[in-house]
Amino acid sequence: MAISKAQRANDSRAAGKRAPRRRAASRAAYLEAKLGFRNYWYPAAFAHELADGRAIGVRLLGENILLRRVGGSAMAVEDRCLHRGVRFSRKPECYTADTITCWYHGFTYRLSDGKLVEILTEPGSKMIGKLALKTYPAIEAKGIVFVYIGERAPGELAGDVPPNFLDADLEIDGIRDAVKTNWRMGAENGFDTTHIYIHRESPLVRGNNIVLPLGLYPNDRHGISTYAEHEPKGVLDHAFENYRPVFEAAIGGNTVARSKGINNQKIVAREVSIWMPGVLKVDPWPDPALIQFEWYVPVDVDEHMYWRVLGKRADGPAAAGAFHEEFETRWKTLALHGFNDDDIRAREAMEEFYRNDDAWEREHLFNADRCIIEWRKLASRHNRGLQPFA
Amino acid sequence: MAISKAQRANDSRAAGKRAPRRRAASRAAYLEAKLGFRNYWYPAAFAHELADGRAIGVRLLGENILLRRVGGSAMAVEDRCLHRGVRFSRKPECYTADTITCWYHGFTYRLSDGKLVEILTEPGSKMIGKLALKTYPAIEAKGIVFVYIGERAPGELAGDVPPNFLDADLEIDGIRDAVKTNWRMGAENGFDTTHIYIHRESPLVRGNNIVLPLGLYPNDRHGISTYAEHEPKGVLDHAFENYRPVFEAAIGGNTVARSKGINNQKIVAREVSIWMPGVLKVDPWPDPALIQFEWYVPVDVDEHMYWRVLGKRADGPAAAGAFHEEFETRWKTLALHGFNDDDIRAREAMEEFYRNDDAWEREHLFNADRCIIEWRKLASRHNRGLQPFA
Amino acid sequence: MAISKAQRANDSRAAGKRAPRRRAASRAAYLEAKLGFRNYWYPAAFAHELADGRAIGVRLLGENILLRRVGGSAMAVEDRCLHRGVRFSRKPECYTADTITCWYHGFTYRLSDGKLVEILTEPGSKMIGKLALKTYPAIEAKGIVFVYIGERAPGELAGDVPPNFLDADLEIDGIRDAVKTNWRMGAENGFDTTHIYIHRESPLVRGNNIVLPLGLYPNDRHGISTYAEHEPKGVLDHAFENYRPVFEAAIGGNTVARSKGINNQKIVAREVSIWMPGVLKVDPWPDPALIQFEWYVPVDVDEHMYWRVLGKRADGPAAAGAFHEEFETRWKTLALHGFNDDDIRAREAMEEFYRNDDAWEREHLFNADRCIIEWRKLASRHNRGLQPFA
Repeated sequence: MAISKAQRANDSRAAGKRAPRRRAASRAAYLEAKLGFRNYWYPAAFAHELADGRAIGVRLLGENILLRRVGGSAMAVEDRCLHRGVRFSRKPECYTADTITCWYHGFTYRLSDGKLVEILTEPGSKMIGKLALKTYPAIEAKGIVFVYIGERAPGELAGDVPPNFLDADLEIDGIRDAVKTNWRMGAENGFDTTHIYIHRESPLVRGNNIVLPLGLYPNDRHGISTYAEHEPKGVLDHAFENYRPVFEAAIGGNTVARSKGINNQKIVAREVSIWMPGVLKVDPWPDPALIQFEWYVPVDVDEHMYWRVLGKRADGPAAAGAFHEEFETRWKTLALHGFNDDDIRAREAMEEFYRNDDAWEREHLFNADRCIIEWRKLASRHNRGLQPFA
Repeated sequence: MAISKAQRANDSRAAGKRAPRRRAASRAAYLEAKLGFRNYWYPAAFAHELADGRAIGVRLLGENILLRRVGGSAMAVEDRCLHRGVRFSRKPECYTADTITCWYHGFTYRLSDGKLVEILTEPGSKMIGKLALKTYPAIEAKGIVFVYIGERAPGELAGDVPPNFLDADLEIDGIRDAVKTNWRMGAENGFDTTHIYIHRESPLVRGNNIVLPLGLYPNDRHGISTYAEHEPKGVLDHAFENYRPVFEAAIGGNTVARSKGINNQKIVAREVSIWMPGVLKVDPWPDPALIQFEWYVPVDVDEHMYWRVLGKRADGPAAAGAFHEEFETRWKTLALHGFNDDDIRAREAMEEFYRNDDAWEREHLFNADRCIIEWRKLASRHNRGLQPFA
Repeated sequence: MAISKAQRANDSRAAGKRAPRRRAASRAAYLEAKLGFRNYWYPAAFAHELADGRAIGVRLLGENILLRRVGGSAMAVEDRCLHRGVRFSRKPECYTADTITCWYHGFTYRLSDGKLVEILTEPGSKMIGKLALKTYPAIEAKGIVFVYIGERAPGELAGDVPPNFLDADLEIDGIRDAVKTNWRMGAENGFDTTHIYIHRESPLVRGNNIVLPLGLYPNDRHGISTYAEHEPKGVLDHAFENYRPVFEAAIGGNTVARSKGINNQKIVAREVSIWMPGVLKVDPWPDPALIQFEWYVPVDVDEHMYWRVLGKRADGPAAAGAFHEEFETRWKTLALHGFNDDDIRAREAMEEFYRNDDAWEREHLFNADRCIIEWRKLASRHNRGLQPFA
């Protein structure tokens, strides 16, 4: 999926200069999106977590969902028996290929349509056929099971993931971890190009010989593009062209810190973009041959599921296999944990401040945060619906 | 205490068919009873926990209570010094046979009437004799100390325990454990005859050769009796006569599970009943020679004390001693823990759903839940008062 | 600093006899002071905790504060970057002698005036010089860093600490620990002379040969002085003259407990006083040659920092050194932990009751609590401002 230049909806260079009142209005929906946005596809589990016959429970946007693979296809239903409200996933019982049975009284539902098809403890009950679990559209792509949360008819998955993610030759691998902060702390930490300051001692910088400045700041080029006319909608920061790198940090004219990446060879992070409903793409990263994708999927108001996913072009099974081996032995440790675990700590550090709604008025953004402002604006204006929270 | 047929107040066969609005009204008080019902006797501690001279603190229906045995009789007073509000039970000081002294400043109260009789740090204080702790009626029966919570004059203990519990020849033994769910989850799990589905793999089924179907469902006989005219008030489910057992569970006509108890010899659970203020009786259980009683005593809104008590007829000290030995070596492990610990997990699983008040509207009860509906109705119409909650 | 007799503002002997309504009014501000009082100096850290170049975070009266020593002087600023709200103290970065740099994006502030002086990731940002952290006055005295919380111009430290604390020949040493109760439970436990009842088995009594009755009660002498005209304002209880000691406690005329300190030699605690904003002085204690000072500094509504500090007259470096050695090897274990740890448990025991605001109406104070009543009255009438709480 190539990004059409015509899709660029507006030049956002002036965004940072607007009056506070207008800026507040332009981000209002985003501030309400404590549990994220409805009517999107979200990653729910890695395909390998869902072995045939196994059922697992996940929580997305505050909703408990049961996943099971039926005849090779992932199915998703609400993870709560209609009878007494317990979660199936506490002790999943799968007697047939396409049903889930509640461990408490034997209420048995068909996964494809959610219908109550048997009650093991009352054969022939009049309730059979009259009740149905809520079902969720589910599809599998790139080794990930995606679930659709919303009431509108789902669109193509391609409309809810970053460009290139679904490219036929892109091999994918990754990890997911629960992080105890609101999902927006994840999204803003990821899309915040300037936060590389925290990574200056990361083993990845020397370990993969990448160029990593201490910081970046906007130059005078047009640097941020907002794509709001087609799906997916997103904001792209032409990081490499758009910023001046800082390799030596100074206080009062005296150098106080130097980048360990200044003499390195590999240029990475030429483009950083974020796409609705909250998916990051860093291209290339953490190596010129790789792309990193990150989802920050709301679990509850104070928790998100952090997906760290790498993609690499592979022209066949051998190359694909080599990538997975490389992922396990090198990137998972050096990049995803070694580098991105620091981001988890940064998001956790933001939670105390941003859990109060007035934080969004009290923060002081600087020039480099234009990307954040554009993202908030896009998310506020072009989302398909807010997930309500209690 | 025999159950008089004349006490059966109403035929409840039609209960499940009433309009939702009327059903909701009929259970309104029960939904408010998050901390249970006032003006009843509740078990507070086993007698053996209250050695002479020892004082212990318990919490019943949200009230902190200090228990001490005085001259062989159990006494109960509020567990909070009137001076600065600390609990005596943090460090009980009992200098004389019938007093409790606060460990903080030496305020000393007489247990029988709660009166402040000395202040060790200010002999002759004018406050002596002018203040008094709230006292609670307490009695001991069957090796259990019962405390009365309420403002009305207490009635006979016999009016607040299940029939037969106080029979002279019934020997009693048991355990108590705190469970982190509302007490009503305990009561409904216990009185729910169909939940035996969760016990189908229990070691008790084979270990005691008992007949245990996978499930039960109502037949066309009159099966539930409500006793609302005399004390104790309760609902009795003639389980053995009233239900069709399910020994093979099927989905789409194919058998998916078989009871391990189908070829067993011992018939148990002929009658299951629940009595105000929330006490279960399963007769016989877990052996034809035993009766099980269960209390679910509210501690806080999200916690109850689960009492598992067995009774056996004993015609003298030798038989009684044999029962206690049998209890320790066989029933405590095989039945109370081996079987009923699964119930604790089921109640915990219900808590997430029922902690929201709207759960009672969203649940979908089935035929076999008629017993639950009758219990809720009885508790709503015939309780002696609600315990308020914060 | 000597206490002028003329400073005694009112004879408080009749205080305990006032009508409930008037008493309630006279302590109203105190009941609102859940986070303490503004416009006072509070101890924030021991000087030895603040090594040169090191920055530490503390929380006082619900405010997060960063401390750092600059050129030998302690500086204090709010511990929250103005950019994205994270705490500096999560990972303090101090590149120069007088700045703090935020670990997240390199925002760098001057500690003396709080001004943003650099942004390491955007040299030359227009925000530089335009934003400033809130700063707090800080001074060091007696090996303790004090921070001023308030909007009024700070007065002399001498006005906010007990008399004699700043005496030139008084050598000071101590410890501080977080305690999980409101600060007022600390202050009232400390100033409550009668609570010595809890200490009757303390190793300190025999270990230091001190006279310690089981309790005390007021005699007919004028015993409590309130100092409300000058700074510091406080209440002094002439404990030794004012009370009758109880060495044998009796119930119904029979002795039930005897003080282990009755035959001891050393007279201590001749005077116990408490000073705004909540600092105790016990003179002498725990030895005739020592004075104990205690601060109960509000951290949050349900936590305070408990400072246990001893002072001893020392006529030169050798005597001072001997005192610090004596403190480490003897008083820290025998007195501060061995004796005062019991006070921590007593305060924790009060928390459950006093966390409800109606507790202050429901308590029943006795004669010996006149000191507490005077303290509440002083704090209500003569404080410099309430710290608001959420």
